[in-house]
Amino acid sequence: MRVRHKPWAKDMLADHPEYVVAEPEKLVGSWQDEFKNSHPIHLEIGSGKGQFIVNMAQKYPNINFIGLEMFDSVLVTALQRALEVDLPNLRLIRADGRKITEFFQSGEISQLYLNFSDPWPKSKHAKRRLTHENFLTNYQVVLKKDGHLQFKTDNQNLFEYSLVSLSQYGMVVDDISLDLHNSEIPDNVMTEYEEKFSSRGQAIYYLLAHFK
Amino acid sequence: MRVRHKPWAKDMLADHPEYVVAEPEKLVGSWQDEFKNSHPIHLEIGSGKGQFIVNMAQKYPNINFIGLEMFDSVLVTALQRALEVDLPNLRLIRADGRKITEFFQSGEISQLYLNFSDPWPKSKHAKRRLTHENFLTNYQVVLKKDGHLQFKTDNQNLFEYSLVSLSQYGMVVDDISLDLHNSEIPDNVMTEYEEKFSSRGQAIYYLLAHFK
Ligand SMILES: C[S@@+](CC[C@H](N)C(=O)[O-])C[C@H]1O[C@@H](n2cnc3c(N)ncnc32)[C@H](O)[C@@H]1O
Ligand SMILES: C[S@@+](CC[C@H](N)C(=O)[O-])C[C@H]1O[C@@H](n2cnc3c(N)ncnc32)[C@H](O)[C@@H]1O
Repeated sequence: MRVRHKPWAKDMLADHPEYVVAEPEKLVGSWQDEFKNSHPIHLEIGSGKGQFIVNMAQKYPNINFIGLEMFDSVLVTALQRALEVDLPNLRLIRADGRKITEFFQSGEISQLYLNFSDPWPKSKHAKRRLTHENFLTNYQVVLKKDGHLQFKTDNQNLFEYSLVSLSQYGMVVDDISLDLHNSEIPDNVMTEYEEKFSSRGQAIYYLLAHFK
Repeated sequence: MRVRHKPWAKDMLADHPEYVVAEPEKLVGSWQDEFKNSHPIHLEIGSGKGQFIVNMAQKYPNINFIGLEMFDSVLVTALQRALEVDLPNLRLIRADGRKITEFFQSGEISQLYLNFSDPWPKSKHAKRRLTHENFLTNYQVVLKKDGHLQFKTDNQNLFEYSLVSLSQYGMVVDDISLDLHNSEIPDNVMTEYEEKFSSRGQAIYYLLAHFK
């Protein structure tokens, strides 16, 4: 995602510990304490400007949501959205998705979301794709048994790659759509990228899968 | 496939035992004897008018091909195509795909093809889809270990259904394309339906999978 550098973003994130967890590794195994309830925890990796995770948190108050995003300048927009509403069931983390096993205990996450992940089209960059097996290994750790991974993208090659990658890893596909907005899959919450691409008439690919 | 009834088809099929195997259940376990070699055997279920299986047999003389089709009036066109060339590595069977375990021994088939299978869109007809688990159970019997199932269709719903069905059954996807004709997948041989739909600009879906 190309965003203007925002020199003030870092400070603003630091000023809002009620949303932004500065040291997530200190909460390993105690995220439910942080949320002060025992509701399930859903994690989005690469949450960008936060439209999806903020809207999900509003829509489902009995689920705890965490948006994890690598860049300050992007995550700060998610924070700004959250500040407009009041969401005790939302937290944000500024970090690399490679590190999730340092932040979450085995089985601590009930559902994982990957939305419009960077496609990294060159095969020499395949390891950076969020559906590469190196990432799947970590998802399998933090996701509880029978927890699901939900993935949406407009990118045909990334979707094809991901289906094969998940399947080869041993994941089982529970639902799929090659045109989410014309499917019977209910309760879709759109992301920024999803709005942008679908308004251009592009089909949105969707899948839901679990580890065996 | 809608075809005119051809009252002469049955007789013509019976007149060509060099191609049409009238009693396939008698060849269980001895198909390589029938072909007089030990080459691998590839089976297409729902081979229709035979363009694919006849062209495959021409292109790959060191593979034995069997086209299985339910209707005389369709299969007879495959026979006519075969008669125009000379293909010792081709056989045709007029039968229901539900019966393949009566025709083939466990592991006798090296590769299975499903091309543009009837979509049976109503869910009450799901059991008729050639990728329903009842069919997969039989494919798993006749297909040798590490043998592959290759599936092509223009039908989005059938493709989505099939991906989930195969995955839930425990099959592993090795390759996939949501637009076969613009993919890097080599050596595609087109079927009748494939030519028809792709000439109308429709994308062709493709997958290759194996049983674990
Ligand atoms: C293409 S944007 C999509 C944003 C949002 N999910 C949407 O659908 O609108 C991908 C986002 O993932 C973030 N990202 C990519 N790799 C990441 C990683 N390894 N860890 C955390 N975030 C990552 C990028 O910084 C970017 O903000
Ligand atoms: C839509 S046509 C496609 C024909 C050809 N494969 C192609 O791609 O042009 C499907 C064919 O599968 C045959 N078929 C459907 N169900 C079958 C079954 N259970 N056993 C054998 N053939 C079947 C139909 O009779 C029809 O000829």
